[in-house]
Amino acid sequence: MSGKQFVVIGLGRFGSSVAKTLYTLGCDVLAIDSSEELVQNISDSVTRAVQADATDEKVLRSLGVRNFDVAIIGTGTDIQTSLLVTLMVKELGVKTVVAKAQNELHAKVLLKIGADRVIFPEKEAGVKLAYSLISSNILDFIELSPEYNIVEIIAIRDWIGKSLNELKLRQRFGLNIIAIKRGNNIKITPSADDIIMEGDNLVVIASTDDINKLNHN
Amino acid sequence: MSGKQFVVIGLGRFGSSVAKTLYTLGCDVLAIDSSEELVQNISDSVTRAVQADATDEKVLRSLGVRNFDVAIIGTGTDIQTSLLVTLMVKELGVKTVVAKAQNELHAKVLLKIGADRVIFPEKEAGVKLAYSLISSNILDFIELSPEYNIVEIIAIRDWIGKSLNELKLRQRFGLNIIAIKRGNNIKITPSADDIIMEGDNLVVIASTDDINKLNHN
Ligand SMILES: Nc1ncnc2c1ncn2[C@@H]1O[C@H](COP(=O)(O)OP(=O)(O)OP(=O)(O)O)[C@@H](O)[C@H]1O
Ligand SMILES: Nc1ncnc2c1ncn2[C@@H]1O[C@H](COP(=O)(O)OP(=O)(O)OP(=O)(O)O)[C@@H](O)[C@H]1O
Ligand SMILES: [Ca+2]
Ligand SMILES: [Ca+2]
Ligand SMILES: [Ca+2]
Ligand SMILES: [Ca+2]
Repeated sequence: MSGKQFVVIGLGRFGSSVAKTLYTLGCDVLAIDSSEELVQNISDSVTRAVQADATDEKVLRSLGVRNFDVAIIGTGTDIQTSLLVTLMVKELGVKTVVAKAQNELHAKVLLKIGADRVIFPEKEAGVKLAYSLISSNILDFIELSPEYNIVEIIAIRDWIGKSLNELKLRQRFGLNIIAIKRGNNIKITPSADDIIMEGDNLVVIASTDDINKLNHN
Repeated sequence: MSGKQFVVIGLGRFGSSVAKTLYTLGCDVLAIDSSEELVQNISDSVTRAVQADATDEKVLRSLGVRNFDVAIIGTGTDIQTSLLVTLMVKELGVKTVVAKAQNELHAKVLLKIGADRVIFPEKEAGVKLAYSLISSNILDFIELSPEYNIVEIIAIRDWIGKSLNELKLRQRFGLNIIAIKRGNNIKITPSADDIIMEGDNLVVIASTDDINKLNHN
């Protein structure tokens, strides 16, 4: 555990998830929302939950927000609120401020006024779902760079019973195998003579192009 | 490309991201929202965008929704709308229906009435952010299994200027390096004599325990 203190402002789906997870991980979490109902709902799952309007600087001061190491701004739909709260929290001296953005323009302004990191939860989930939908083989995915991704794929029928050496997945398909998942076990950086078995999932690094090609086979 | 046809209903941040990404990946995408503005915004980024009330069954019929392979229901805040649209789309005969849920109860009902998959974008992003915040080194992460994760970490100061062979990261820290990110470049499965440079990010497979240990150093 990091020993850091966190304040989460705006307890929508995103903010409440951050707040509860941090608390579960052993952190000190102050959670703030203007909705009494959301504050009540979360009160047993964080260190302290307070109903307050976070755009009121007096409120932030009286809650001692300046003493927190990290602030997460989870207010979303109203861009002005998110900008105002980010600005105030930063000016009060919170070292790290992470804010949820609606779109690229919102993100740009957030970074300009001092946010240290900007998050697009819905956009990222949308990209990930799209990739998983175009291939019934793709189970999970991380974008490493605009070009390369880590994907978890179901082993293709043709591959079963063959060794990695025989299959030459890198040369033939541009797939760099980094792990084989077999039931609850995981074999990291498998060797050339490891044999693919039915039900195996492969974790690979591959370019977006090569992933798309795989779907045609 | 899968050759499947997709209909996305509800073009908020999540729905519009799914729709645009599917279209970028070469898929046929019909996008529907009751907001004229959102429909206009997305019109050049999908096959067809239509302003309509998706709770009206006549509308869904006249748009030929029955002929689509996959429907993504991105309407969120109003639970009744999401349930009604999911039910109708499924009854029209769409094989795969994926819906965005507000909370666990909403998800349960969605699955009961026929949704094939349920997504919690904000909740998942919140969990991921919480993990990355408790360690200043962790930039991104995928859970591979309850025990192992793929994480992207900032190279620790001590490692800079040393080769992977010298550092023995697997033996000393349980870190299996699968890629080095350097600016916009990415080096996959680096070799033992690759040298870590300032500003490098490392993509590693490691157990949750080993990741936590790293944070104490
Ligand atoms: N001035 C404010 N002070 C305190 N809380 C606020 C303030 N303005 C908004 N909030 C709270 O922020 C939360 C999130 O805002 P909103 O619902 O607009 O974002 P959202 O992007 O739809 O959230 P999510 O997608 O994470 O559910 C709401 O619970 C709202 O009550
Ligand atoms: N009956 C309907 N027919 C068509 N579109 C609808 C209908 N009801 C809602 N929508 C659209 O669905 C979209 C998403 O709904 P809403 O904004 O409530 O969800 P959200 O969870 O806040 O979205 P996100 O977090 O992805 O931005 C909105 O753009 C809204 O116009
Ligand atoms: Ca909301
Ligand atoms: Ca919305
Ligand atoms: Ca949302
Ligand atoms: Ca993930």
